[in-house]
Amino acid sequence: MELHPDRLLPPDPGVRDIARRLYQSVQDLPIISPHGHVPPQWMADDINFEDPTSLLITPDHYVNRLMHAHGVELSTLGVNQKDFTADQKREAFRTLCSMWPIYRGTPVKYWFEHTFSEVFGITQVPSAATADAIYDQIDAAIKTPEFSVRSLYRKFNIEVMATTDDPCDDLHWHQQLIDDPTWDGRVLPAFRPDKYLEPARPDWNESTDRLAEVSGEDTSTWQGWVAAMENRRAYFKAHGATSTDHSHSDAGTEVLPVTEAERIYLAARAGTASVEECTALRRHMVTEQARMACDDGLTMTIHPAVVRNHDPEAFESYGADVGADIPHAVEFSRALQPMLSRYGNHPNFTFVAFTMDETVYNRELGPLAGYYRSVYVGAPWWFIDAPESISRFRDNVTTSAGLLKTSGFIDDTRAFCSIPARHDMSRRLDAGFLANLVAVHRLTEDEAVEGIHDLVVTCPRKAFKL
Amino acid sequence: MELHPDRLLPPDPGVRDIARRLYQSVQDLPIISPHGHVPPQWMADDINFEDPTSLLITPDHYVNRLMHAHGVELSTLGVNQKDFTADQKREAFRTLCSMWPIYRGTPVKYWFEHTFSEVFGITQVPSAATADAIYDQIDAAIKTPEFSVRSLYRKFNIEVMATTDDPCDDLHWHQQLIDDPTWDGRVLPAFRPDKYLEPARPDWNESTDRLAEVSGEDTSTWQGWVAAMENRRAYFKAHGATSTDHSHSDAGTEVLPVTEAERIYLAARAGTASVEECTALRRHMVTEQARMACDDGLTMTIHPAVVRNHDPEAFESYGADVGADIPHAVEFSRALQPMLSRYGNHPNFTFVAFTMDETVYNRELGPLAGYYRSVYVGAPWWFIDAPESISRFRDNVTTSAGLLKTSGFIDDTRAFCSIPARHDMSRRLDAGFLANLVAVHRLTEDEAVEGIHDLVVTCPRKAFKL
Amino acid sequence: MELHPDRLLPPDPGVRDIARRLYQSVQDLPIISPHGHVPPQWMADDINFEDPTSLLITPDHYVNRLMHAHGVELSTLGVNQKDFTADQKREAFRTLCSMWPIYRGTPVKYWFEHTFSEVFGITQVPSAATADAIYDQIDAAIKTPEFSVRSLYRKFNIEVMATTDDPCDDLHWHQQLIDDPTWDGRVLPAFRPDKYLEPARPDWNESTDRLAEVSGEDTSTWQGWVAAMENRRAYFKAHGATSTDHSHSDAGTEVLPVTEAERIYLAARAGTASVEECTALRRHMVTEQARMACDDGLTMTIHPAVVRNHDPEAFESYGADVGADIPHAVEFSRALQPMLSRYGNHPNFTFVAFTMDETVYNRELGPLAGYYRSVYVGAPWWFIDAPESISRFRDNVTTSAGLLKTSGFIDDTRAFCSIPARHDMSRRLDAGFLANLVAVHRLTEDEAVEGIHDLVVTCPRKAFKL
Repeated sequence: MELHPDRLLPPDPGVRDIARRLYQSVQDLPIISPHGHVPPQWMADDINFEDPTSLLITPDHYVNRLMHAHGVELSTLGVNQKDFTADQKREAFRTLCSMWPIYRGTPVKYWFEHTFSEVFGITQVPSAATADAIYDQIDAAIKTPEFSVRSLYRKFNIEVMATTDDPCDDLHWHQQLIDDPTWDGRVLPAFRPDKYLEPARPDWNESTDRLAEVSGEDTSTWQGWVAAMENRRAYFKAHGATSTDHSHSDAGTEVLPVTEAERIYLAARAGTASVEECTALRRHMVTEQARMACDDGLTMTIHPAVVRNHDPEAFESYGADVGADIPHAVEFSRALQPMLSRYGNHPNFTFVAFTMDETVYNRELGPLAGYYRSVYVGAPWWFIDAPESISRFRDNVTTSAGLLKTSGFIDDTRAFCSIPARHDMSRRLDAGFLANLVAVHRLTEDEAVEGIHDLVVTCPRKAFKL
Repeated sequence: MELHPDRLLPPDPGVRDIARRLYQSVQDLPIISPHGHVPPQWMADDINFEDPTSLLITPDHYVNRLMHAHGVELSTLGVNQKDFTADQKREAFRTLCSMWPIYRGTPVKYWFEHTFSEVFGITQVPSAATADAIYDQIDAAIKTPEFSVRSLYRKFNIEVMATTDDPCDDLHWHQQLIDDPTWDGRVLPAFRPDKYLEPARPDWNESTDRLAEVSGEDTSTWQGWVAAMENRRAYFKAHGATSTDHSHSDAGTEVLPVTEAERIYLAARAGTASVEECTALRRHMVTEQARMACDDGLTMTIHPAVVRNHDPEAFESYGADVGADIPHAVEFSRALQPMLSRYGNHPNFTFVAFTMDETVYNRELGPLAGYYRSVYVGAPWWFIDAPESISRFRDNVTTSAGLLKTSGFIDDTRAFCSIPARHDMSRRLDAGFLANLVAVHRLTEDEAVEGIHDLVVTCPRKAFKL
Repeated sequence: MELHPDRLLPPDPGVRDIARRLYQSVQDLPIISPHGHVPPQWMADDINFEDPTSLLITPDHYVNRLMHAHGVELSTLGVNQKDFTADQKREAFRTLCSMWPIYRGTPVKYWFEHTFSEVFGITQVPSAATADAIYDQIDAAIKTPEFSVRSLYRKFNIEVMATTDDPCDDLHWHQQLIDDPTWDGRVLPAFRPDKYLEPARPDWNESTDRLAEVSGEDTSTWQGWVAAMENRRAYFKAHGATSTDHSHSDAGTEVLPVTEAERIYLAARAGTASVEECTALRRHMVTEQARMACDDGLTMTIHPAVVRNHDPEAFESYGADVGADIPHAVEFSRALQPMLSRYGNHPNFTFVAFTMDETVYNRELGPLAGYYRSVYVGAPWWFIDAPESISRFRDNVTTSAGLLKTSGFIDDTRAFCSIPARHDMSRRLDAGFLANLVAVHRLTEDEAVEGIHDLVVTCPRKAFKL
């Protein structure tokens, strides 16, 4: 196994030459990662990873779900297992390697090959026969100081990385990083208040009580909830946050009359609000976050429309985020209208919409970002963080939104070692996209060089105010 | 800046060779423009344009919306400004040129480059530094007789061009053209009755009163409305119209029992019809237009499903059609069934369906056009009048509908000078599409030469009865 | 007319070289056809076809619908005509040949060219001038023993072929094949119970009565209906069936409480069930088929979401399946959740979802197949059994589902002579897809060789338990 220097670049020799030059012009730029799921503790404590399986398999639902689709129980991969022995870990790694062909054509294979080769210097192709040798080589490496998280952070040339955090989190890991004179990286919290915005959730009242405790505001009233939210956003901003992140079952926004918001809020607190009222209140709460964003300037990102925990048995056995979420269709044009008609052109508001339903790129998100001052189209993420989707994304949004009303690449990952692979993948594909525009004489090569620099650094810095 | 002769042709050298030959075979064919928004007065009075900004920026929402997305106020571009001074015009042009990079990858850049280069002989790349020189060069040109509208019409090799007109319009500009012995062009009206078919609109009663005045029919009854419509269609046909054009929020059709249509019509006139009744009546009225089309042979075109005036503040300040419309998903298969089951195979009926929701090309419009005698798939328009969408369009509809059940290219524009750029773009992309079919041996080159000739002239002539 | 050996392979010379090698590695593998509509009698009686028109035109709605779209009456093509004379047949063939250009760019042209050239040795391009000669050449050929169905079956290198059969069918043609010692092919029935699962159909009660007769179960109760279904599935399985096939207006599944299922069933039998109740019962019945599949192991395939008999006049004149069906949008993620949450990971359950709405490949079906053990993504079929769609299919599902959670190619055809053309088309396109992955260094060529072998034989054998 070895990485070809031209991987992912367009096959046509003429276009590839252009793409190669474009790629080389951004290849060594630092990684800007404004949204992801790496735990801040890793950087704060500069940990070393324990073993290859808990690093590369167990926490990564991208990897596990396809093995599950081929009959592997998640428990045997260590998912939600309290006592997962060294033997079991080695066995899980053997399972992965022996099933290597199931990943053909997937981005997971691509990321793994990059990680194995570039991070760990593995030259063997994963298989039942090579599993143990690969395991041992990685296991030995990750115990050395060169593979501590901070060492890798520097090696990966990460300029800034955001984590995803609960509004009630005290952000002490982030504080520890701020207070650490030996740390010169930049790890920022991001405000993810979903569960506080869903009055229909069984745990909403409890969450809202907790919000009161942490913020010191009285959340028995609607005004108190608003104040508590403003308080926590300010706390996050004071700890370096530049964005808030939101994921609900739809993209709905709504502006309720204040008295109606108050009435439903009290009913929800009393447990008597109907499903429809809870939905209306949630949409109003989302719109309130936009209003707050106009004030405090935190970028607002959304990525709605996924059936969470589609497989109830897996949810019972393993909990959330184990790969059993399934996307569904989403609508933005009408759903965002109440919010955008109020705040869409506010000079202090930045709004990034992500999707896993690619049909909206061309039809809705491109046109929205190509008109409203606040709107940026988010890069393909999660299920569509894949070469084909990234290419289609540019083919679909550039027409209406150009290059500059897009978010820059988002890795959205908890797989730390795959971060360089993902960002590098995106740069190669954007180079191919722009090379094609040069080849059909829609851009000069000079314009394309500027364009790819914009995509790699200008866009994420602007969209996330970094 | 100079236009490359191979622009937009496929990058692969072998395919490009084929494409170049196909393109050259249609490059000089006349422009057939069966749907657009150029004011007939321009040709009737053979005007000269006033200045570069009011020609190229102010009226063109394709151009303005992306500047707005980057923070430019529409007022500074002259939108809906009564007194827009010479200085402001020059300043607006500077804004455009200085923001040139925002258009990278968009068709607007492509059209501008063609217009600047081919129509005005500009060689400089637009920028803050070159804005004034470009402005002056265009400004000087458009004041000369060589740049009067009729001169350009001939230079552009336009064979026929349709305008878009209100049913109550007396079409005096068209009459003036008919009566002018020095005019040898062909400018046809098109019948656009949307507002008369939407009983839920606040101005519907007033419009319907006006319809009575102009037609001489008594629109206090349903039968009168039908007679008035037939009257105005006949008037348009007598002035050269070959088509009617319709855009509502959905593609719905419906056949109400006559007594029910009468009942709702009277209720709508009395202001007592419900929203649901108004929708049903609108769909019935649309279906009535199809019935009339079977009689008078006017081609019926529809392009539904856009949120008009998505930004209410912009609507208040600047009015409609300023770029703040946003497409949404559309459904045709079930929506058109009531109408097509009645008139879909009528030998005198021609029906062209346009969309901005590309998902329906393959799923719905291709199959409908590949079965019903009357149905043609309209070319990509508005937001999707772009190279990528035009290529996807052919990839998606040809399977079911072939080449010949499509409409031919539609420029749909009020930007007069961009008309050659748009039609040329379409010819290049169709050449590329057909060249690919030749390269994979699905067509011989002879078949492709016939095919591209069909796409450029046979299809629009047939679909629009020209 | 002659078939180019590189047809459908990617135009880029470097990629084409790889694709050619991949294609050649599977070119001669046997055809596995697990779903289609060839009548079993043809093989049982080893018939010879009567004439070119009744072989190639009359029964093939793919062919007829586009001629209909250009004004040809279906009656003149022999559709549903009792006395269709020899002259009329020849005339119908002349119509096809003279309209040859309407098929440019469609798969129908591709299949015809393959059939004409490879099966019948025709060298002339179809046209008004060549129609009679082609007709005569085919007519002469099909009367010879070399063109009997069994001869062609062997010549086409078919390994296994499934038919589509009514649950009440006694499968005597299949029995005749089983009993025939001279027959060494493999023709399997498939269980298609749609009309027994739609209590809202006017003929449902009658069908359910018939089900009782044939199964010997008492279908006056819900338990009896279940028992009758289990009985007929067992009967089909005993005759070689490995799959059941289902097509309803949506993909809905639902698990009713038994008492509710019983209640609605009795109401439906009594003709008093509401439309909503009938829909709920249908979805429950579909889910019951999944439960039975866990027991008997028959693979379950679905292909929902088409407006059947969109043109009521054609339905009255010609009946169903004449090309007047139109696809519409479909939703799987939520619709399948009730069924998959019960049976989705059952080790004995295999579920293949087909679609004509391509938007779900990437958004829903890929993610479902990439998680649930039972789920496979079905290959493009019917309207999207076309080169462009097949390429897009791989581009869209491989990301989430890899190569191995797909169904293998399905011809779904009643056009016997087109079967080799269709399977060959799929192999060429899959070769092109994999060659591109090799060209961008995502697969080694060795991996691609294994991959295409999997797509051609491993996948269909596994998904259909052959």
